[in-house]
Amino acid sequence: MKLKDLGEFKFIDKIARGIRTSAKTVKGIGDDAAVLRYKRDRYLLFTTDMLVEGVHFHKSSRGYLIGTKAVSVNISDIAAMGGVPRFALISLGAPGSLDLGFVDDLYRGMRRVCRRFKIDLAGGDTVYSDKIVINIALLGEVEGRNLLLRSGAKENDSLFVTGFIGGSLKGRHLNFTPRLEEARFLARNFHIHSMIDISDGLLADLCHLLKESRKGAIIHESDIPISRSAGGFDSAVKDGEDFELIFSIAKTEERRLFERWPFSTRLSKIGEVCKRGRGLWLIRKDSKRERLKAAGYSHF
Amino acid sequence: MKLKDLGEFKFIDKIARGIRTSAKTVKGIGDDAAVLRYKRDRYLLFTTDMLVEGVHFHKSSRGYLIGTKAVSVNISDIAAMGGVPRFALISLGAPGSLDLGFVDDLYRGMRRVCRRFKIDLAGGDTVYSDKIVINIALLGEVEGRNLLLRSGAKENDSLFVTGFIGGSLKGRHLNFTPRLEEARFLARNFHIHSMIDISDGLLADLCHLLKESRKGAIIHESDIPISRSAGGFDSAVKDGEDFELIFSIAKTEERRLFERWPFSTRLSKIGEVCKRGRGLWLIRKDSKRERLKAAGYSHF
Repeated sequence: MKLKDLGEFKFIDKIARGIRTSAKTVKGIGDDAAVLRYKRDRYLLFTTDMLVEGVHFHKSSRGYLIGTKAVSVNISDIAAMGGVPRFALISLGAPGSLDLGFVDDLYRGMRRVCRRFKIDLAGGDTVYSDKIVINIALLGEVEGRNLLLRSGAKENDSLFVTGFIGGSLKGRHLNFTPRLEEARFLARNFHIHSMIDISDGLLADLCHLLKESRKGAIIHESDIPISRSAGGFDSAVKDGEDFELIFSIAKTEERRLFERWPFSTRLSKIGEVCKRGRGLWLIRKDSKRERLKAAGYSHF
Repeated sequence: MKLKDLGEFKFIDKIARGIRTSAKTVKGIGDDAAVLRYKRDRYLLFTTDMLVEGVHFHKSSRGYLIGTKAVSVNISDIAAMGGVPRFALISLGAPGSLDLGFVDDLYRGMRRVCRRFKIDLAGGDTVYSDKIVINIALLGEVEGRNLLLRSGAKENDSLFVTGFIGGSLKGRHLNFTPRLEEARFLARNFHIHSMIDISDGLLADLCHLLKESRKGAIIHESDIPISRSAGGFDSAVKDGEDFELIFSIAKTEERRLFERWPFSTRLSKIGEVCKRGRGLWLIRKDSKRERLKAAGYSHF
């Protein structure tokens, strides 16, 4: 049997089943970042992402943008937990023939994002590799009261999404701002029940959130803001790398949330959380209901 | 100009010059792990290593051994700082055609080392890649009084090395025990002035330690324990991936160290630290002196 016969998500489930962690790991595999016991009133957040040439970027792209993306995807994970990023390590695999100008550009991009979000570049590793591989490990922290998990969605919660969905591959995936400020604002000022960032696609990541929360949901086509660069609704909700936030909040907080939202980033209510047994339903613009299956980007 | 024209170490120096960190990073690039402010009396240690198929291992090697190596090289870095490892994240890049048996074996190896050294596998990332790439990010901690840096060697210190040097490529590089217990014993019971683990080769890593300490040294060919699988002294001291420890300690502590050393791991005094201006000298078995230049494994 091969890796692709199992698929990425079943593979991750399989790995997770084999792993036992101590009480110091509050949350391991199954959220945007690991949650680790730290101080009395705060947790460490620990996440990592690998970017491979030809998969996540092309060599012809600007090194600067690849560098910003490599750091930003990790910041997005820390944001989705309600926390702030602090320290990063960079691993770079690259061929000896790689142009130094490209590498300089790559690090310039990474340094710029780190400076903007007050992250210390604390070290890393450099090795030979035929294709360029960048791995970032990012360490952050979050106050206990601000920690947001995928698993907290409650029945009748309102489901929200930031920004516009889909079409990220046409450029935005290399040039996006992680929703750190928005996530911190939400974590500090509202009782957010659950949150995830969109890396595999709106539907796939909503399914991850619902699975961890053991809930179902109803979402409305007419309420989901689709990016102009997307190829229509049905592909947009499957496109990966939006790096927007999906979150759920009690219906009673909805009005206060819209009133207080201080960002230019669009905020959209896209549906409601329901009992798990009801599954995930999409209400089409013509009011027809469709039962949905998870469909997003799988690496294998 | 290409990456290989600069070479790995000059490249790392170049990156390091461009980076500014906050006061929370006590030690960034230039040691075995980053040292981060944490609690009043202890630091976080943060390190990462990337292993690439065809460079650090071959696909024909057992997945189990590759997995143990991937984790162990990181533990060796934490050990060399005097600390203990706590949490690991695994990034795996692999082709979809990879045999699941191999991947299971890989994770079995990683889990085994983690269990042995009480490390929580807290998460990771899985992505598509033509060649297998494994990146481990490891988080550890160390009490302030036990922190060991490369930079603390003092004039007239005695230089020590654990184990045997050289020939690691013949098999030991895939099947070694990181010197965690030895390093902790040293950190807790002696005033170790400086320490580094050997990944690039005895000479290269000794040079790293001396450079960070701004010192020189004299080492004795007859005192350096060479592995039977090495191809003689001159290549052994350049071979990488020994994962032994080099450390320096006041001459006055030497006797107590030999008397109390409780391990079967060999402990050898190989030389003395001297003024920086004197450089690095090797005393041959025939008593002739040779001035040495750093020579070890460079990735580019």
